[in-house]
Amino acid sequence: MQNFELTILGCSSATPTSTRNPTAQLLNIAERFFLIDCGEATQIQLRKFKLKFQRINHIFISHLHGDHYLGLIGLLSSMHLLGRTVDLHLFCPPELEEIIEVQFKHSQTYLRFKIVYHHHKYIANDLIFEDNKVEVRTILLNHRIPCCGFLFTEKPLLANISKEIIQKYHIPVEQILPIKGGADFITTDGELIPNTNLVSNKLKPRSYAYCSDTCYDERIIEIIKGVDLLYHEATFLNEMLPRAKETFHSTALQAATIAQKAEVHQLMIGHYSARYRDLQPLLDEAQTVFSNTILSIEGKSTVVEPVSM
Amino acid sequence: MQNFELTILGCSSATPTSTRNPTAQLLNIAERFFLIDCGEATQIQLRKFKLKFQRINHIFISHLHGDHYLGLIGLLSSMHLLGRTVDLHLFCPPELEEIIEVQFKHSQTYLRFKIVYHHHKYIANDLIFEDNKVEVRTILLNHRIPCCGFLFTEKPLLANISKEIIQKYHIPVEQILPIKGGADFITTDGELIPNTNLVSNKLKPRSYAYCSDTCYDERIIEIIKGVDLLYHEATFLNEMLPRAKETFHSTALQAATIAQKAEVHQLMIGHYSARYRDLQPLLDEAQTVFSNTILSIEGKSTVVEPVSM
Repeated sequence: MQNFELTILGCSSATPTSTRNPTAQLLNIAERFFLIDCGEATQIQLRKFKLKFQRINHIFISHLHGDHYLGLIGLLSSMHLLGRTVDLHLFCPPELEEIIEVQFKHSQTYLRFKIVYHHHKYIANDLIFEDNKVEVRTILLNHRIPCCGFLFTEKPLLANISKEIIQKYHIPVEQILPIKGGADFITTDGELIPNTNLVSNKLKPRSYAYCSDTCYDERIIEIIKGVDLLYHEATFLNEMLPRAKETFHSTALQAATIAQKAEVHQLMIGHYSARYRDLQPLLDEAQTVFSNTILSIEGKSTVVEPVSM
Repeated sequence: MQNFELTILGCSSATPTSTRNPTAQLLNIAERFFLIDCGEATQIQLRKFKLKFQRINHIFISHLHGDHYLGLIGLLSSMHLLGRTVDLHLFCPPELEEIIEVQFKHSQTYLRFKIVYHHHKYIANDLIFEDNKVEVRTILLNHRIPCCGFLFTEKPLLANISKEIIQKYHIPVEQILPIKGGADFITTDGELIPNTNLVSNKLKPRSYAYCSDTCYDERIIEIIKGVDLLYHEATFLNEMLPRAKETFHSTALQAATIAQKAEVHQLMIGHYSARYRDLQPLLDEAQTVFSNTILSIEGKSTVVEPVSM
């Protein structure tokens, strides 16, 4: 079974603490390593957790607040110094290109690899990446400055077909792949055998939705409906609701409400304000509304387990 | 006695390791906190070592390679978010102003405090800061891009004068401060008493020279002659001399040679290449030429002790 695993590199909000770094996450789907946001010291976190960063070919930056991108130049520089030549795809606000280029210009750095920029167009549900294993779509978030979330979805997985079934219905070799992919089969007698009678272990494509930073906004529910894992920022406890509104952030209760309404399988909260040394109250608050909630903790990985269709 | 203490926040060269951060140092002279270079994650290091960063009013950036300034935007942002209103003086390459301003523009950040830019003019021995306790002068370094070192020197310290001496020569009150500062005294009988006969514990003003990044260049010796503490980069062992020359860096042997020729009291080496897990060989090599050499180690503080004149 192919991997679907999320590793948290940073879980703090704007001001990091001595124990929590700003936002960054590494998502591994079928050995594609997607870096989602890249707060200051992300390259140090990657080293600390022994995650090889040259395997990252796609970086997704949600928005231009420093706690979501300030680690990018350092990471790109280290990739360069360590000999990278492979293209790097950067999905980002258009202005990030200027920020990067002005810094490489003044440091007289000439990268040996190409940065392929994919500028955000800020359209909801826009397909921005696709290969034979994964697709990535945009989620329009509601923050102080333009901000984009990301929905990562596995391509439909092939089911299993047993030797017994192949022999029983005399299925020719060239029909096996279509059946694994969902096709029915017509026997030489003209009998239609529905796909469900042919295959076993048919798995639902898994999905991960990244929603940070954002205030409470129900317009995202349509896109994230039923995802396996939802990361939704929960900067504050609900007692700080006015502050959350003012700064276009969410409370733990609001994150859980979105999870509940979107009927997701699991919610992960994060982007914690530096005021919370103990994160348990944030988790407790979210769980009053949505029990299958977990905390994002730096260095911890969460595997999204496959479920049968 | 006033403080003169250097704390290392980062000692790695361009690519940080899981245990060594890029360059940053905090120098405390008489409760003035000078930040020297500000590599990625400097704000996290300051927090880790419990150093209050709002006390920093002067930041000195040597040059625009990322490992010397990439932590600056994050630090400035946190200063802002935590309510700073006091001016911050930034001594830096002129181009850093563009790098900072373009980022705050795109994140729509409007600082509540003023950054007072002091652009490097790249003149050797240029007095760039002065108050009643300290002065700072430039050291012209020789690197791939324009690079400036810094010489921090205490203002002459007042000596002690005993009650017995005051009574013996009938010294009037208004003459005491000048004598503490170095003046001679003429008695009512017209006898000249030289200052050395009047005061005790006359201390030599202490000095710290920061030289990173640079290749071996004897032209800096004149300015750093006799300093109490010299930080000189030592990116490589001498067996890597061709690589050091090619990248405009120094070897441990070269750093020690500069220390010896400049007759400094103590040498601290740093800016270690990521290839050296064990730093002892770098220290050993330097000590073959200059025995009073120490390693820069993150979190460690070095007190420059006063010595009598």
